[in-house]
Amino acid sequence: MKNSFGSSIIITLFGESHGDYIGAVLDGIAPGIKIDREYIGRKLALRRPAGKISTARVEADEYEIISGVKGDYTSGTPLCILIKNTNKKSADYGDILDIPRPGHADYTAREKYHGFEDHRGGGHFSGRITAALVAVGAILSCALENKGIKIGSHITELHGAFDRRFDDISSDIDLVNSREFPVLTDVAEEKMKKEIAKAAEMGDSVGGILESAIIGLPAGLGEPWFDSMESMLSHGLFSIPGVKGVEFGLGFAFADVYGSEGNDAFAIRDGKVATESNNNGGINGGITNGMPVVFRTVIKPTPSIFKSQNSISLTKMENTELKLEGRHDPAIIHRARAVVDAVTAIVIADMLAMRYGTDYLAANN
Amino acid sequence: MKNSFGSSIIITLFGESHGDYIGAVLDGIAPGIKIDREYIGRKLALRRPAGKISTARVEADEYEIISGVKGDYTSGTPLCILIKNTNKKSADYGDILDIPRPGHADYTAREKYHGFEDHRGGGHFSGRITAALVAVGAILSCALENKGIKIGSHITELHGAFDRRFDDISSDIDLVNSREFPVLTDVAEEKMKKEIAKAAEMGDSVGGILESAIIGLPAGLGEPWFDSMESMLSHGLFSIPGVKGVEFGLGFAFADVYGSEGNDAFAIRDGKVATESNNNGGINGGITNGMPVVFRTVIKPTPSIFKSQNSISLTKMENTELKLEGRHDPAIIHRARAVVDAVTAIVIADMLAMRYGTDYLAANN
Amino acid sequence: MKNSFGSSIIITLFGESHGDYIGAVLDGIAPGIKIDREYIGRKLALRRPAGKISTARVEADEYEIISGVKGDYTSGTPLCILIKNTNKKSADYGDILDIPRPGHADYTAREKYHGFEDHRGGGHFSGRITAALVAVGAILSCALENKGIKIGSHITELHGAFDRRFDDISSDIDLVNSREFPVLTDVAEEKMKKEIAKAAEMGDSVGGILESAIIGLPAGLGEPWFDSMESMLSHGLFSIPGVKGVEFGLGFAFADVYGSEGNDAFAIRDGKVATESNNNGGINGGITNGMPVVFRTVIKPTPSIFKSQNSISLTKMENTELKLEGRHDPAIIHRARAVVDAVTAIVIADMLAMRYGTDYLAANN
Amino acid sequence: MKNSFGSSIIITLFGESHGDYIGAVLDGIAPGIKIDREYIGRKLALRRPAGKISTARVEADEYEIISGVKGDYTSGTPLCILIKNTNKKSADYGDILDIPRPGHADYTAREKYHGFEDHRGGGHFSGRITAALVAVGAILSCALENKGIKIGSHITELHGAFDRRFDDISSDIDLVNSREFPVLTDVAEEKMKKEIAKAAEMGDSVGGILESAIIGLPAGLGEPWFDSMESMLSHGLFSIPGVKGVEFGLGFAFADVYGSEGNDAFAIRDGKVATESNNNGGINGGITNGMPVVFRTVIKPTPSIFKSQNSISLTKMENTELKLEGRHDPAIIHRARAVVDAVTAIVIADMLAMRYGTDYLAANN
Repeated sequence: MKNSFGSSIIITLFGESHGDYIGAVLDGIAPGIKIDREYIGRKLALRRPAGKISTARVEADEYEIISGVKGDYTSGTPLCILIKNTNKKSADYGDILDIPRPGHADYTAREKYHGFEDHRGGGHFSGRITAALVAVGAILSCALENKGIKIGSHITELHGAFDRRFDDISSDIDLVNSREFPVLTDVAEEKMKKEIAKAAEMGDSVGGILESAIIGLPAGLGEPWFDSMESMLSHGLFSIPGVKGVEFGLGFAFADVYGSEGNDAFAIRDGKVATESNNNGGINGGITNGMPVVFRTVIKPTPSIFKSQNSISLTKMENTELKLEGRHDPAIIHRARAVVDAVTAIVIADMLAMRYGTDYLAANN
Repeated sequence: MKNSFGSSIIITLFGESHGDYIGAVLDGIAPGIKIDREYIGRKLALRRPAGKISTARVEADEYEIISGVKGDYTSGTPLCILIKNTNKKSADYGDILDIPRPGHADYTAREKYHGFEDHRGGGHFSGRITAALVAVGAILSCALENKGIKIGSHITELHGAFDRRFDDISSDIDLVNSREFPVLTDVAEEKMKKEIAKAAEMGDSVGGILESAIIGLPAGLGEPWFDSMESMLSHGLFSIPGVKGVEFGLGFAFADVYGSEGNDAFAIRDGKVATESNNNGGINGGITNGMPVVFRTVIKPTPSIFKSQNSISLTKMENTELKLEGRHDPAIIHRARAVVDAVTAIVIADMLAMRYGTDYLAANN
Repeated sequence: MKNSFGSSIIITLFGESHGDYIGAVLDGIAPGIKIDREYIGRKLALRRPAGKISTARVEADEYEIISGVKGDYTSGTPLCILIKNTNKKSADYGDILDIPRPGHADYTAREKYHGFEDHRGGGHFSGRITAALVAVGAILSCALENKGIKIGSHITELHGAFDRRFDDISSDIDLVNSREFPVLTDVAEEKMKKEIAKAAEMGDSVGGILESAIIGLPAGLGEPWFDSMESMLSHGLFSIPGVKGVEFGLGFAFADVYGSEGNDAFAIRDGKVATESNNNGGINGGITNGMPVVFRTVIKPTPSIFKSQNSISLTKMENTELKLEGRHDPAIIHRARAVVDAVTAIVIADMLAMRYGTDYLAANN
Repeated sequence: MKNSFGSSIIITLFGESHGDYIGAVLDGIAPGIKIDREYIGRKLALRRPAGKISTARVEADEYEIISGVKGDYTSGTPLCILIKNTNKKSADYGDILDIPRPGHADYTAREKYHGFEDHRGGGHFSGRITAALVAVGAILSCALENKGIKIGSHITELHGAFDRRFDDISSDIDLVNSREFPVLTDVAEEKMKKEIAKAAEMGDSVGGILESAIIGLPAGLGEPWFDSMESMLSHGLFSIPGVKGVEFGLGFAFADVYGSEGNDAFAIRDGKVATESNNNGGINGGITNGMPVVFRTVIKPTPSIFKSQNSISLTKMENTELKLEGRHDPAIIHRARAVVDAVTAIVIADMLAMRYGTDYLAANN
């Protein structure tokens, strides 16, 4: 597969940054899922650039659902969402067809598509496409919430500034989902915004780490080989532009602990099976154990910077310098949280539909 | 999909730790690929436990290819490999059906399979199954080497002991592939083996981090959305037992650098496009750029330890203690290197076959 | 999978008969394929109802390609086609939510989608959706023609009226593709149109059989088990509304011949391997043998008729009568030829891309 | 995909006619399904050649289940079945590597596998492989019967000899499943066996048509586009060696009726929705309507005949004659019934698991 993802619930993305529309088709969704436009709008707003710390290109993200919905409910047939690109300045991208931007996909797209690719604004590789991903993810995460499954992400680290880790996960998810800037504390927000502003002043950019959690998942979800919960989530997450690492539970810190420290002891809690710690991030052997699923995703600094960079001319095959102009984010991680949550919702919804059937997500099932 | 992986070249695993056989079917492989039994034997030997730092259960790993091969060449039809389980001591696993081992899949398997699972030795979740994965991966990586594509992994970190990072990657891959214990330096081997031995003495276990590299890949491999090179590799890697994190290039360290530090400047080198640094691990926008693909995988400490652990009785639904006996590895990371390399070969071979056609891997293509 | 089809080249359909748009996404298509709008227009015209023998609902089929194309060429990223529904009369469909139309999907849609389906005009089941299928198929069949692969279909039988069978297939394909009514002879056209007109007068409808051929395919295409050429083609063809049978070569007539009559003897012709007859329709063991691929598809009579029919009230769960009004085709088979050709092009293009790689269909490959 | 089939329940076949084993892996099967060895043995016996009307090569079909089963129940992990090839006479196949047998896959295999294929006895194309298909299908059809879903097939036509059509389908399925030769009447058996014997005497062979039915399926199964019930069944059926046509309900006879004759009027029967006729074979719009699913499959005459046939020498690229020796069936249709039933069970089980979840087939679900 290519620009499609999923087995029972399948998303297909299309569109280019400077085309007329971007969009997505969501197939396999249960009939009878409420389309909550306020909820979708809220999620899209979290992804939309805002204020000083984001790009000056602001899109209204007005979406149209042109199929798969009757009244306010999904009909069960493929749902197509279109989002119009209204604010394009293609003139800014004249050079990159010849001089690839470091850290971007310009050169690799050229190798893959032989020059036929729409290079303007990154074309199909643009973060712009994630608006469609967020819209689709919102439909699914809204349905998941009706099943008691909640998803949330916050920035734990951004160029030396830190947020506290998740603690009481259920209320922390509610907290972060109510905040425009995705952290759990005001002090973290202040410090991180300062770091972003500082990078912006220098014409530079920063990345960071998102910690995400899913609560309410039943135990027993995932497959032993190949379609493990970690495999499915990472497959989705690594297709988000800028993601360069994914870890579950202790993640890379497992390298420094003993087995006796890393294992999560079982205990009966309120008559149910639980674990005393959650170092494995809610997953054993690729399968959920009923504890919160916790993972961390690193987003690299936005590759678009205003500092002069070494690059090459592909037509002349010689070294040259590149100085970008236009509108660029000094950081995207605070916006990426909405994308990470959307991809998480898509993966989880698909795995639940595979296990419990295609009608599972409908409200009265 | 489930216990299958791949689009053009598809692997399916089967078998239980204490069944008669484990095995794999490899479908979609090009006809005319040489079966180099010495090469396969060497890879299996790297996975096999050896000496003091591994489990006392040693299997000969004598495999049989029962289909898909004529003479010494693949026929192009599905290739089935069987490996006999010769050294089973099921009596050791009497208790775990009731008392799940912390860190293992006993409890999650129970939730998924409702008690019908073969729990002995971890059943289908056992690391034993990776022998089939390694055998299949060896067939493919041997073919990849004939195409100039090489794969290698070494331990960079193990409970406070470190190896140097990859430097001249081509010769470092050769170096590590020639060493039984996967590090680049003798001093690292000594320190790490000491850490493993120390853990073993305490009845405990350690994990670690593998750094892997692929060289010789063409630029242009991977998809922008969902089937990115990072997505495909991580999907495969996270299905290996014990893997809890995967990062590419700088990975999680991207959180601490500016965009100007993280971007890889382009330069013409020997008349070809190259990058001055390789912080992105050879991948931009999900697509290979022709530089070495570099990633790191964390393996958690073996969950089987001899220390007493808190657990529960599932039949009585009450807390209890568990003390494991039997044969267990104090570390598996040195053996996991062969599994990581095998999975990498499988993913890469599939992506090449998708892009260049099903005959691509045959010698004379 | 669901409303998606294909492994390397994947089509996803969306839209409802009485929604604002219907459309399709085509993913995995090679970059650099010319978009020949005149060619696409011609294929859409063949599907469009015309004159007395078709429905009074005529749509302009003005399509928009909103992604995946730069200038006149495919960019290699997902191509989305939208076709606006301009001529809707939903009032005509008031009753069918309660009283399912015999032969239609009203009742089965209700069972599958629990009443959330958009029932107007058949919703997502409508033949209207095939406009998007034809548009996408046209892009691919245009590229196939540049590779020397041609596809054509004619009506061999329609309620007792017959056309001659394919003879010189290459010129017969050209002939039928130049005719609005898909037969090879004027006399067949006259007789069949008379049958259609007669059915229309009675408020009734007719079906028929299409004979299709593909020439120019390389030998060696298809898989022995499950993804045989027959399996792939029939999978696609049986998703066309109204198709109830598919046969290859002699098809059902194989029941009446001896093996010695049915086998196609091999012979060297012009220095190449050929067969003396083509009873197997160009396919042996599921794999093309280089001879024309020939198959026949039966299309049932349009279920929408103006005669009174027995049906039920789903709300009252009692028997009732149904008399349809509105605009309906007395026959769709002459229009279905364009859909059968489109699906054939999609299947073939995907199988070629799987075998020869994703760039195969590009002009200069 | 290739030698795999299915979305939730996936079968992968492997093995060659003259290798040591043939076999299959069944993945995605629910845990807790009873393995009824007597039932499986009965189905294998129906496929096994017997008496004068079949090949002299008789295999015991002793199968081994080497994974995925604990005690008498499926464990939910991949189930691998092996069947040993005990009765091989490879010497009989010396010539066909050079001189392809008309009607067989020898030549197309050569084009696909470039001479690396195992040609002996048809290799991976051999009908021998269907023994594994029947074994796997038996496991699933046994589970389906516990859910009230029954499958059966009988020969309706064989070289001018006819059986009556299905009438009371439930009891007719029981009847045919109790008969070794799959017809509903003694007179049909006598006539058909006479035709087979006559063909055998001439060194020739015959084919025929199987009529199959499935009862007990819920309404609402199948997808509107691409994964329609007809698409899925035909995909599976056309991968059975010798199948050249598949039709549902009236099938090709739809070409000769009016819509008013072909439509199935709805009626309330015993308080439930039913149709007065079943011309659509239980499927409307690609989705089951709760009536029996009825389809017909044509099997071509066995291509292995003892009469001299025209063929070619591939090494000399010149015309030659071929006269086969060895052991061959004058008809396979009576054995193919078991294969058609097995494939039907596999398709239906997969579609049910997709719709109702992976645990659906387990006894107590």
